[in-house]
Amino acid sequence: MLLRQNRVTFELPTWIEPFIARWSDKFDSPETRMRLAIELANQNVEHKTGGPFGAAIFETGSWRLVGVGVNLVETSNCSILHAEMVAIAMAQRTVGSYDLAAGGRLHHELATSTEPCAMCLGAIPWSGVRRVLCGARGQDACEIGFDEGAKPADWVGELNRRGIEVARDILRDETRAVLRRYAESGGTIYNAGAGA
Amino acid sequence: MLLRQNRVTFELPTWIEPFIARWSDKFDSPETRMRLAIELANQNVEHKTGGPFGAAIFETGSWRLVGVGVNLVETSNCSILHAEMVAIAMAQRTVGSYDLAAGGRLHHELATSTEPCAMCLGAIPWSGVRRVLCGARGQDACEIGFDEGAKPADWVGELNRRGIEVARDILRDETRAVLRRYAESGGTIYNAGAGA
Repeated sequence: MLLRQNRVTFELPTWIEPFIARWSDKFDSPETRMRLAIELANQNVEHKTGGPFGAAIFETGSWRLVGVGVNLVETSNCSILHAEMVAIAMAQRTVGSYDLAAGGRLHHELATSTEPCAMCLGAIPWSGVRRVLCGARGQDACEIGFDEGAKPADWVGELNRRGIEVARDILRDETRAVLRRYAESGGTIYNAGAGA
Repeated sequence: MLLRQNRVTFELPTWIEPFIARWSDKFDSPETRMRLAIELANQNVEHKTGGPFGAAIFETGSWRLVGVGVNLVETSNCSILHAEMVAIAMAQRTVGSYDLAAGGRLHHELATSTEPCAMCLGAIPWSGVRRVLCGARGQDACEIGFDEGAKPADWVGELNRRGIEVARDILRDETRAVLRRYAESGGTIYNAGAGA
């Protein structure tokens, strides 16, 4: 048999490095952290480098930015590269561990411009993040045609039971505006209805 | 602000290429396809390159092997790299698309040595695979201490409703033996109870 692939690399779009370098606001409130996630989503649409979703991971307290992500599904041809997944992978590279909680010694927070889909929701407990900030609701993404997948009805409670806090509706209207702009600009609503 | 990481690369362990090259059996039955996934899990334990999980993706009909995966969480320091996620990323590289269904024109099958956790379950509809073969049950992984996450009670029905077939208990006992051997050899049960 032939092994056709043995390596996968994914990279953030080139606009992100100068974009982050220009960012001077502190991340000392939930809104300031969410604003980065939303602006990543917005710029990803602007630069046509993927879907209208952004995420960022911060060390709690110091509010050091340890990883960012944008949706790279189309540009990387890889369905697992939602913004949250990219941010988790980047943050774990920064910290040098697959566990951002370091067995309880570290505390990191994930800010995501839209509530996680079923995949990203499932990834959150494995990542070691201890708090999740959400902008738009899952239903806001569904309204423009995205499918958020089959999530447990009480997904917030499921995260809480694993010791993960969730804060919702942080700057929700601003994120919804990004989602709407993406839909109106004719952005791909990929995989909507896949298998249907 | 400083962007600390902008690229992530992950690679299959070096033993996989010669291992696949030596594999001469055809993949023309569910059991022959599952045997590859189980043997990937087994060899991953043997070589101490990660958790006791393996996955493979085949083109239905031709049974061409388009991607393989093993659990790379520890060796790649990345919590999202479960065997199924790795196999999906590799297969999408082979096919050159984030959608293994190609909008309905292609049909691919995922064989996974153990039923998907919540993250991998959420990833399956986005991947475009149309059929999932499972070896061990989720509860078999839980019995040795892994947490499968919060899955919808009727997760098989949820996949079915998205047009994805599921076949369970294919060579279940053989996979359970691999899981037990991993636990007995003192393999890391990472992230068990994370956040608890």
